[in-house]
Amino acid sequence: MDAKLLVGGTIVSSTGSTRADVLMENGKISAIGQLAESLPDSVERINCTGKYVLPGGVDVHTHIDSPMMGTTTADDFLSGTIAAATGGTTTIVDFGQQLAGKTLLESAEVHHRKAQGKAVIDYGFHMCVTDLYEGFDSHMAELTQDGIASFKVFMAYRGSLMINDGELYDILKGVGAAGAKLCVHAENGDVIDRMAADLVAQGKTGPGTHEIARPPASEIEAVSRAIKISKMAEVPLYFVHLSTDGAVEEVANAQMGGWPIGAETCTHYLSLDREIYDRPGFEPAKAVLTPPLRTHEHREALWRGINTGALSVVSSDHCPFCFEDKKRLGGSDFRQIPNGGPGVEHRMLVLYDTGVAEGKMTIEKFVEVTAENPAKQFGMYPKKGTISPGADADIIVMDPNATTEISARTQKQRMDYTLYEGFKVRCSIDQVFSRGELIAANGDYVGAAGRGEFIKR
Amino acid sequence: MDAKLLVGGTIVSSTGSTRADVLMENGKISAIGQLAESLPDSVERINCTGKYVLPGGVDVHTHIDSPMMGTTTADDFLSGTIAAATGGTTTIVDFGQQLAGKTLLESAEVHHRKAQGKAVIDYGFHMCVTDLYEGFDSHMAELTQDGIASFKVFMAYRGSLMINDGELYDILKGVGAAGAKLCVHAENGDVIDRMAADLVAQGKTGPGTHEIARPPASEIEAVSRAIKISKMAEVPLYFVHLSTDGAVEEVANAQMGGWPIGAETCTHYLSLDREIYDRPGFEPAKAVLTPPLRTHEHREALWRGINTGALSVVSSDHCPFCFEDKKRLGGSDFRQIPNGGPGVEHRMLVLYDTGVAEGKMTIEKFVEVTAENPAKQFGMYPKKGTISPGADADIIVMDPNATTEISARTQKQRMDYTLYEGFKVRCSIDQVFSRGELIAANGDYVGAAGRGEFIKR
Amino acid sequence: MDAKLLVGGTIVSSTGSTRADVLMENGKISAIGQLAESLPDSVERINCTGKYVLPGGVDVHTHIDSPMMGTTTADDFLSGTIAAATGGTTTIVDFGQQLAGKTLLESAEVHHRKAQGKAVIDYGFHMCVTDLYEGFDSHMAELTQDGIASFKVFMAYRGSLMINDGELYDILKGVGAAGAKLCVHAENGDVIDRMAADLVAQGKTGPGTHEIARPPASEIEAVSRAIKISKMAEVPLYFVHLSTDGAVEEVANAQMGGWPIGAETCTHYLSLDREIYDRPGFEPAKAVLTPPLRTHEHREALWRGINTGALSVVSSDHCPFCFEDKKRLGGSDFRQIPNGGPGVEHRMLVLYDTGVAEGKMTIEKFVEVTAENPAKQFGMYPKKGTISPGADADIIVMDPNATTEISARTQKQRMDYTLYEGFKVRCSIDQVFSRGELIAANGDYVGAAGRGEFIKR
Amino acid sequence: MDAKLLVGGTIVSSTGSTRADVLMENGKISAIGQLAESLPDSVERINCTGKYVLPGGVDVHTHIDSPMMGTTTADDFLSGTIAAATGGTTTIVDFGQQLAGKTLLESAEVHHRKAQGKAVIDYGFHMCVTDLYEGFDSHMAELTQDGIASFKVFMAYRGSLMINDGELYDILKGVGAAGAKLCVHAENGDVIDRMAADLVAQGKTGPGTHEIARPPASEIEAVSRAIKISKMAEVPLYFVHLSTDGAVEEVANAQMGGWPIGAETCTHYLSLDREIYDRPGFEPAKAVLTPPLRTHEHREALWRGINTGALSVVSSDHCPFCFEDKKRLGGSDFRQIPNGGPGVEHRMLVLYDTGVAEGKMTIEKFVEVTAENPAKQFGMYPKKGTISPGADADIIVMDPNATTEISARTQKQRMDYTLYEGFKVRCSIDQVFSRGELIAANGDYVGAAGRGEFIKR
Repeated sequence: MDAKLLVGGTIVSSTGSTRADVLMENGKISAIGQLAESLPDSVERINCTGKYVLPGGVDVHTHIDSPMMGTTTADDFLSGTIAAATGGTTTIVDFGQQLAGKTLLESAEVHHRKAQGKAVIDYGFHMCVTDLYEGFDSHMAELTQDGIASFKVFMAYRGSLMINDGELYDILKGVGAAGAKLCVHAENGDVIDRMAADLVAQGKTGPGTHEIARPPASEIEAVSRAIKISKMAEVPLYFVHLSTDGAVEEVANAQMGGWPIGAETCTHYLSLDREIYDRPGFEPAKAVLTPPLRTHEHREALWRGINTGALSVVSSDHCPFCFEDKKRLGGSDFRQIPNGGPGVEHRMLVLYDTGVAEGKMTIEKFVEVTAENPAKQFGMYPKKGTISPGADADIIVMDPNATTEISARTQKQRMDYTLYEGFKVRCSIDQVFSRGELIAANGDYVGAAGRGEFIKR
Repeated sequence: MDAKLLVGGTIVSSTGSTRADVLMENGKISAIGQLAESLPDSVERINCTGKYVLPGGVDVHTHIDSPMMGTTTADDFLSGTIAAATGGTTTIVDFGQQLAGKTLLESAEVHHRKAQGKAVIDYGFHMCVTDLYEGFDSHMAELTQDGIASFKVFMAYRGSLMINDGELYDILKGVGAAGAKLCVHAENGDVIDRMAADLVAQGKTGPGTHEIARPPASEIEAVSRAIKISKMAEVPLYFVHLSTDGAVEEVANAQMGGWPIGAETCTHYLSLDREIYDRPGFEPAKAVLTPPLRTHEHREALWRGINTGALSVVSSDHCPFCFEDKKRLGGSDFRQIPNGGPGVEHRMLVLYDTGVAEGKMTIEKFVEVTAENPAKQFGMYPKKGTISPGADADIIVMDPNATTEISARTQKQRMDYTLYEGFKVRCSIDQVFSRGELIAANGDYVGAAGRGEFIKR
Repeated sequence: MDAKLLVGGTIVSSTGSTRADVLMENGKISAIGQLAESLPDSVERINCTGKYVLPGGVDVHTHIDSPMMGTTTADDFLSGTIAAATGGTTTIVDFGQQLAGKTLLESAEVHHRKAQGKAVIDYGFHMCVTDLYEGFDSHMAELTQDGIASFKVFMAYRGSLMINDGELYDILKGVGAAGAKLCVHAENGDVIDRMAADLVAQGKTGPGTHEIARPPASEIEAVSRAIKISKMAEVPLYFVHLSTDGAVEEVANAQMGGWPIGAETCTHYLSLDREIYDRPGFEPAKAVLTPPLRTHEHREALWRGINTGALSVVSSDHCPFCFEDKKRLGGSDFRQIPNGGPGVEHRMLVLYDTGVAEGKMTIEKFVEVTAENPAKQFGMYPKKGTISPGADADIIVMDPNATTEISARTQKQRMDYTLYEGFKVRCSIDQVFSRGELIAANGDYVGAAGRGEFIKR
Repeated sequence: MDAKLLVGGTIVSSTGSTRADVLMENGKISAIGQLAESLPDSVERINCTGKYVLPGGVDVHTHIDSPMMGTTTADDFLSGTIAAATGGTTTIVDFGQQLAGKTLLESAEVHHRKAQGKAVIDYGFHMCVTDLYEGFDSHMAELTQDGIASFKVFMAYRGSLMINDGELYDILKGVGAAGAKLCVHAENGDVIDRMAADLVAQGKTGPGTHEIARPPASEIEAVSRAIKISKMAEVPLYFVHLSTDGAVEEVANAQMGGWPIGAETCTHYLSLDREIYDRPGFEPAKAVLTPPLRTHEHREALWRGINTGALSVVSSDHCPFCFEDKKRLGGSDFRQIPNGGPGVEHRMLVLYDTGVAEGKMTIEKFVEVTAENPAKQFGMYPKKGTISPGADADIIVMDPNATTEISARTQKQRMDYTLYEGFKVRCSIDQVFSRGELIAANGDYVGAAGRGEFIKR
């Protein structure tokens, strides 16, 4: 019997915290309570006194080994999941792109091959739908049967990813019929393209211009529209990476009216300010991600959204492009800079620091938005996202009295920068267990490669 | 001296009513007051005792001699303006279409030629922008200089009229630079097309299906979106033919927030019910116009919008297609039925009846939405739309104690049906003066052809 | 025949402006238009070229010769109406107080006696209802018959003026039955009293504390509540002196929902800032009026309310207490300072300057809120508030190219201060006609005493 | 060692359900998991296969042995808590009244004596504050120290319970200083009294009139007002027994704006319809409780409030008056009927049936609103309201495949009626454990009298 006992830690779920031991057997959690005395000595004990024992992080928004904007994201499934694991995330749901001229089935197959034998933590997929073809809906149904029960569309990026409102309607209908879920990137791409073109025409080509071309209203409009189309199609949806006060308000109003919209925001929108776009040189390019970072007022609205439940998930939107690549591709026109940044490694640490340590959220809410809700939203609960009997033993031990310094020099993700450079986070992630196996300790990966399993949802 | 005195009528403006005489000299109104005694006998007297003396109607939404959906609207500028005149309308602003492969300048020229020598009342033009080309914005500026100071776009009808959100942004910018105004047909065309296709796929091809494919939300979404794009472009706009409660609410909220949106509804949305779509046979095709007729609840919201000022104009959206044409073109698929119906002739009569006679609006509000506000919104005030010294002597004498029966048999518009067939309207329009000249009396046109003048705005 | 002709001025109404002559005969306006040439030389001509010819101001919120807070307002009907007249106001509706132990009928009689033989312009009364007694509602009906068709209640000042919610309900019912109108002073008096007591307990007794004890929420709450009670009673109401963004929003929402709430704000809320409360010494006492002056944000919201029509009237709330009296009574406790300030004399001048000259409102809107709407709201239109045939010849001639400096030294109201001291207003009021009679010229009163007439409404 | 093992049931918390065993030792829960095999035979096993194992109900709104409206509620702490226990509730928080002429401390002492030696389940107190006196706030602070950390006020019932807005402000300040919580009964008592008087004056004295005199707006107004006063006082509050759509909306908006309002509704508002007021004879008196039952539309809004989290607690508002008493006291005037009805016994059963069995809420939400949230809102969590290691072993075993019929003949509460007469509820409560002790089985109380303990919060 493979049994380990986490002794004396504070176990946290969204509903509360309790001091108890956790028994992990054969990859599962088998019991919780005052267990240390009654168990045989053969059971390995890990002392967790003074520490948090939390469900491993579930990050439902990553782009690993993903072709985008003329290049490919910098992490493959090995480096990306090692980064995730050392940062306390034990499950990801990654976005597979629909490939040029390929069906969704073929594209999913390609993505499967990228992950197999590389991923070190368990993983699922969403599939992006960017090119409708005859029979796309039956393929969505088939993928749902195969465990890929969620899809994604983009309301921006005309010419590459963007679908129009009629296609959004059709895809919603297809998703509804398949019993799956639709993720929506909500920005008004057409207006953004025109604003960007006007700015370039005025000679504003630098990386900080990216923000000006994507004002809050360009997100809020798309969120408002998508909700209305969702109601017309009679199929709910899930918004990725919301960044604005108005978007939170639209979502909250829909929910209050009884329409079950799901919504996430990301670590960076909760912890970083738009001032980076005012920095000299090409530095703003590090924050060329979509939507852009916003002001303090929007950030406060996002925190309210988190605490009232309008926003139920915090993901990383890990979409890593090296600074060197950004400069090479977009040095003379901000529109060519690959949109995205790293995040999967530091989501848990940074969110704990700006949220829990800062007093903006409770530790219970932290667990809810980093693990419980992501697992629930995407059909993995209670296998993932909770410390309860029968669940996978995906657990992290966090020390709230330690400090971790973030730096590109020491990070595991394959990146030459991080937006959190120099952050001194007020906690450390001491042990990470995946299905009962210790895979990371004190910030280093200690497990095997390729041990991760595909999660059928 | 050409002088006429309207004696003893009740003169109405949006601010109030007063019993007084009106002196018309040389095509203009020269004085108002107790004038009868002091003027020489040579001045012609028209007894208006017991009657309303109102500014002639200004209808800013007509489609005359207009190519659309594979055919042409049934009225030319002679029949259409005669119909208008006998119904109490002394000014129209008509929509010129941008013609295939032609610039806005060329298209405007074509429209000018259609009106010249035919129109019997004064007229202006809006130009529809359906196909953007290099330099379209300088042409908009040029047209504005030439007195065509308003344009129109469609958010529906992909493949023929529809522009996308980026084009809407560009056109707003162009309109703003030109100092002109943009009219917007707000419906989400892409979603409507998909809904319609689904309905046809289910075998629902009859004319009543037209309504189901254009639910209230398809208008409300587009209104909401256009307002947000308008704010991003920092150029206000004007909504044509609003039909829903949600649209009124969006407009009112924008106005309350300080954003000066203009908005109209039409006679039929205020007076007719959607039940026509349930009628047997091809009868519902008579009401195949966009947006479709709505329920009582929406109608009440429109009346509130009128009375609170959120909606400031009532137009006809006169877009006449004969019933026979509708059947011929759309008999097997409702999507092929030309969208539109007649209205310019009966706008004033029907609105008076369902509004003033029914107690839903005051006579002052009637004047405001049929004459004053349309003239103001489109730069023709105080030349048109008011009875005050110096204004054009465009005046109607209305008898609120008479009755007028509406019928296709007797109407002047070149149509084989009217949606108001059999209506017994509780007023009559006894005399119509255009620039001081009596052009209609007791429902018949008594003026010359081609006497109408183009209004540079 | 007493006839005068105002020649060549710009006549303004809410709907527009036109250059024309105005003929005044026997106290009435008899004609408007191009009249100068056709009239005999015997008619007196007043050259108005380059000037505005406006309806005389209608101020529906004054407290003249009124017992309040242990003293009496400083103006009697002679000084108060002379001040009004020289400032361009030709009609007031003054608040009569219900006197201790007296019925509404008796109290109205007392107020009548104060005005008779003194007032120099026409005047009406509202009666304040502060003490309900058996039969108060039939007295309200009787007063309405006698031409006092409006009443007022206070939701603040417990122990002297305040009525509770049940009494508000009863009075609304009574007003509804009488066919009259109810004015409401909306502040939550009980909460204000507690806040003020807490402040005094903390030693904050100075005059600037007045503002802190009456936060925006204390008004907004009362407005929200009164609207809801008004709906339960099924009788609309009219809010006096609104000062906050939230109040405007509550009113606008009620109106949009079809509930016809009336609402006014006052000159000082549109033109003055709360910073006066930060001034040293007893100076803030000059602005101890209720509600207090607010911040820029609230002021902008009031302007939006004016321009969208949510607020339809601008009154003065002329409630003059001399600075010396304020100091004597409230020198040691701000709660004892008589609440109110002067205003009737400068309402028109200051509003023109901060509104029209500043570009925040049109001259048409100015006429609407200073004359037309007040007259309409309180049943005096079109006798008062408009320049149209048949109306009383209450007219002012305003020169928009002149300047007027405001000072306590030169003012007509019986006051030792004005909040507008030193204002250089960008217009002058050159002539004031009341029923065709010139009563003020170049800032001086030139008419007889006691010539004003009571207006039965 | 007193140890019992609940074997094989489905354990439910707000975050999820899991099949596991629960070990109870010495009145506490000591472990959860796959425990059956590893524990010695000496541990008593209770087979829970196929059943729900839920935290015992926490009912935070009861009025036991309480003087009200000239009589006393029918249950004492023995009968009332036995009824609670057999219905699956293991904790109550009861409202102690402030007694005439007595301080809060004295009144609390009286209430303590009523419960001691009688209550069979654990109990806490809120104290009602109905009569402010010098030093009331220090008494509130003292009571908070003594474990009575919540208070209640009434915005209705002038002359007996009602406080005015200034007193509400003062009490909020006192509650804030004490670190306690304020419960608010939100109805506009003054308007209700006037409406009721008008109805009686019209001869409408029957029991069904109770509803008409308390329209939805009378609750919504008070909720809106209390929120605004709460913000002015900068102290949040908790609304009891909300019944209307507008109240839910007000609460949700406050929460979304970041103001942490708590709110409950009651079983009857979620399960019963207003039609009872239309029944003949005195029957409607059974539902004379405040606020009254509402229409379907309000009920749906309450369910949305539950599911979105705006409403976080479902309580019983157990305030039992026998039908005979109601008739005796209020037979000739509905205003004299004691306001209240029974509920503590059937809250869990009825809510499960209309909520979970009907598909309107999940079993997790059921646990959240009946146990977890009530315990959290009033400072008893995680001692009460959860099945987790260390918590009190207050547990119920529920069979979702059984049926329970409700009838006044068989109920334990000391009542001659129940509003749920004849309901066939789709579950049964088979065992009830309080601190590890079996106190009810199959609907009968099997524990000792007086075993309940006061909960210091």
